[in-house]
Amino acid sequence: MSADLPVDGDRLRQDIERTAEFGAVESDDGRGRTALPADEANGQARDYLVDQLEAAGLDIRIDAVGNIAGRWTPPSADSDAAAVAAGSHLDSVPRGGIFDGPLGVFAALEGVRAIQESTLEPTRPIEVVCFTGEEGTRFADGVLGSTVATGKRSVGEMLTMTDGTVTLETALQNVGYHGTDRIDASEWDTWLELHIEQTTRLRDAGIPLGIVTDITGTARCHVTIEGEPDHSGTTSMSERRDALAAASELVLAVESCASDMAAEGTGTAVGTVGHLSVDPNTVNVVPGGVSLRIDLRSTDRPEIKTQLDTVRDSLADIEAQRDLSTTFDCTYDIPPTPLSERCRRTVADAAHDQGVETTSVYSGAGHDTMQVADVTDAALLFVASQNGHSHSPKERADWDDCTTATRVLADSLARLASTNDQRPLNPQDKC
Amino acid sequence: MSADLPVDGDRLRQDIERTAEFGAVESDDGRGRTALPADEANGQARDYLVDQLEAAGLDIRIDAVGNIAGRWTPPSADSDAAAVAAGSHLDSVPRGGIFDGPLGVFAALEGVRAIQESTLEPTRPIEVVCFTGEEGTRFADGVLGSTVATGKRSVGEMLTMTDGTVTLETALQNVGYHGTDRIDASEWDTWLELHIEQTTRLRDAGIPLGIVTDITGTARCHVTIEGEPDHSGTTSMSERRDALAAASELVLAVESCASDMAAEGTGTAVGTVGHLSVDPNTVNVVPGGVSLRIDLRSTDRPEIKTQLDTVRDSLADIEAQRDLSTTFDCTYDIPPTPLSERCRRTVADAAHDQGVETTSVYSGAGHDTMQVADVTDAALLFVASQNGHSHSPKERADWDDCTTATRVLADSLARLASTNDQRPLNPQDKC
Repeated sequence: MSADLPVDGDRLRQDIERTAEFGAVESDDGRGRTALPADEANGQARDYLVDQLEAAGLDIRIDAVGNIAGRWTPPSADSDAAAVAAGSHLDSVPRGGIFDGPLGVFAALEGVRAIQESTLEPTRPIEVVCFTGEEGTRFADGVLGSTVATGKRSVGEMLTMTDGTVTLETALQNVGYHGTDRIDASEWDTWLELHIEQTTRLRDAGIPLGIVTDITGTARCHVTIEGEPDHSGTTSMSERRDALAAASELVLAVESCASDMAAEGTGTAVGTVGHLSVDPNTVNVVPGGVSLRIDLRSTDRPEIKTQLDTVRDSLADIEAQRDLSTTFDCTYDIPPTPLSERCRRTVADAAHDQGVETTSVYSGAGHDTMQVADVTDAALLFVASQNGHSHSPKERADWDDCTTATRVLADSLARLASTNDQRPLNPQDKC
Repeated sequence: MSADLPVDGDRLRQDIERTAEFGAVESDDGRGRTALPADEANGQARDYLVDQLEAAGLDIRIDAVGNIAGRWTPPSADSDAAAVAAGSHLDSVPRGGIFDGPLGVFAALEGVRAIQESTLEPTRPIEVVCFTGEEGTRFADGVLGSTVATGKRSVGEMLTMTDGTVTLETALQNVGYHGTDRIDASEWDTWLELHIEQTTRLRDAGIPLGIVTDITGTARCHVTIEGEPDHSGTTSMSERRDALAAASELVLAVESCASDMAAEGTGTAVGTVGHLSVDPNTVNVVPGGVSLRIDLRSTDRPEIKTQLDTVRDSLADIEAQRDLSTTFDCTYDIPPTPLSERCRRTVADAAHDQGVETTSVYSGAGHDTMQVADVTDAALLFVASQNGHSHSPKERADWDDCTTATRVLADSLARLASTNDQRPLNPQDKC
């Protein structure tokens, strides 16, 4: 079957490299980009995608939160059949890499183009999807678009979210992606996402493609610490209520708790304080307030719970010892997600038939797939990273590996779009 | 002598309260203001001051870095005699108090007005001075204007300093205070500065006015820590080079070093990390870089040196243990400053004759006076703070104490302006 699929690695590379030009970041470390959800660079990347979807003859829908779907209904297909969908996202973290997101979107498109150019006759429509705001860097804590497309949060609730200056609705209007169509992931027969791996497990094993068994759960917390802003020269050490010194203790507590957990448990636990801001943040004022955001993960939900409890207890101790007031809000709590055995088996078969070696891995990062997997059968594939760096201009994949993975993705899409297998009606029944 | 001085507390209060309207900060804690050097609010406060200086008939000079001097030459004075000067500054920290700076400027003006309205016949001119950028919150690390007026740094060097967006020169031009006059502190016979105390020593002692014997020295350091930005979900704890965790260790090292020193030594040592910024500062990226600014003080120079050495050693340990790269620059190093006995005695005599109780205190904060004291005889007076809060909207002084202190200041100015005492030609000779 795979022999029929003329996947064009140069065309895929051109799509990814053109997308990298929008919000391009100069760096000695490699090519980076900054394209926050619905900012100008993200708008330009979306425009480029829509042009390519149209060039491939796909019917485009844009929903109210800016999710984009390009639908190809093969002449051989039943247009009413549930579609097979694939894609990822085009937004990035600040100074992120060029593969994270665009690889999955354009590999899906290249897969469709390859199937179009082949002799295959799929019986289901195929959709190429770009979700809005997968990275939690603006408006929401991440997987914004897939949260709406899976019906977990309402359009209205999301559109009023703000980055402190504008609402998501206004930002989408500014870039022309506040659409009126409906994209409902539960209507898809299956979902596949191809992504660059974000560690070096595949590279270390010398294997180009990983099939993800589980996505780690993620809890995110927002902590505020209120001390007393005061003069740094005249306030004696014993009189201080220094919010930054308190926050420093918490940062180290998060780190040591996760390190202990990782050494003892599944080995997948991590804990990070990625964001910290100080008020008034001036050299001659004892910090009066600190706001920080904590990210805790594991493939094992009790490990996340234990981390949350430990961090909360540490904060309470710090509050009491330093006479401060604090708040602790868990703003985001996604449990670990096991992925569809049917989809994983299809991908493994396609890879096997193409002579591509694969292995099972877990994902330490959240992805839109973890949302979609709650409403339909879903799989997540990883292309080997050359150095494990992610969310950084150092992120790097081998172009040949990308082509190989896209060929497996295309073959998997073709197989899923050519079967009448019924997915379980109740998503809880899937493995 | 003091009986002749009709100091008007209401007029003083009005000047301070009008100045507080520029950059006013809403706060449950009290009246605050944000007037950074040469910003719009600072420009408005300067305009208000100039109007009041003109209304009092003073001859105004503005120098190239925006220092303002209003000179009153009494009919009884020798216009060529060295002037007696007094003043302070009109800039603030972000969300600072309303007394820090404006009290000293407007008390000096009220002192001149009171002498003008009295029967006294001073033999020296008197100058009311506002220095630019006393707080180290924009362009320079503090005492910007007095550093130029005392010849320690050149006009050209200062004007090219930038806040990251504009140079000092442009900012001064924007508010209309890039002048062409010359203000040279070494030409003054004496200098007095009245300031709100920034701790509760005077309040605790029940004394309205303190006469400062020494100003603590201050060293400021800029530290950068470069780790590795990477994905917070996929980078295992053992692989990380987390710049924020490293910075947290340094913040706590600064705190514990200063606390130990304060418990053992002169009791005046303090150490603060007031500024810390994280790059990229996003919840799902392990922090790759941190920049922080450290402030170390004591009235005893060896105590500052020991703190510097300890903090530098801690940073080196952190760098080695966490495999990071760091920089440590000491950008500001002002030694402790003893103040003029002649000036202090004059103030003490004036207070005594008015029946105002005073006591000797030290200043934990730097002031323009520490610069001026290097080129002429200088004294610094403190009005009791009601709660010790400083650089905060909570800062509070009793208006009657302000009036009392201004009456002592006015009397001191009159005494210094009515004597032919020669100050030592060599500033090193003063006590």
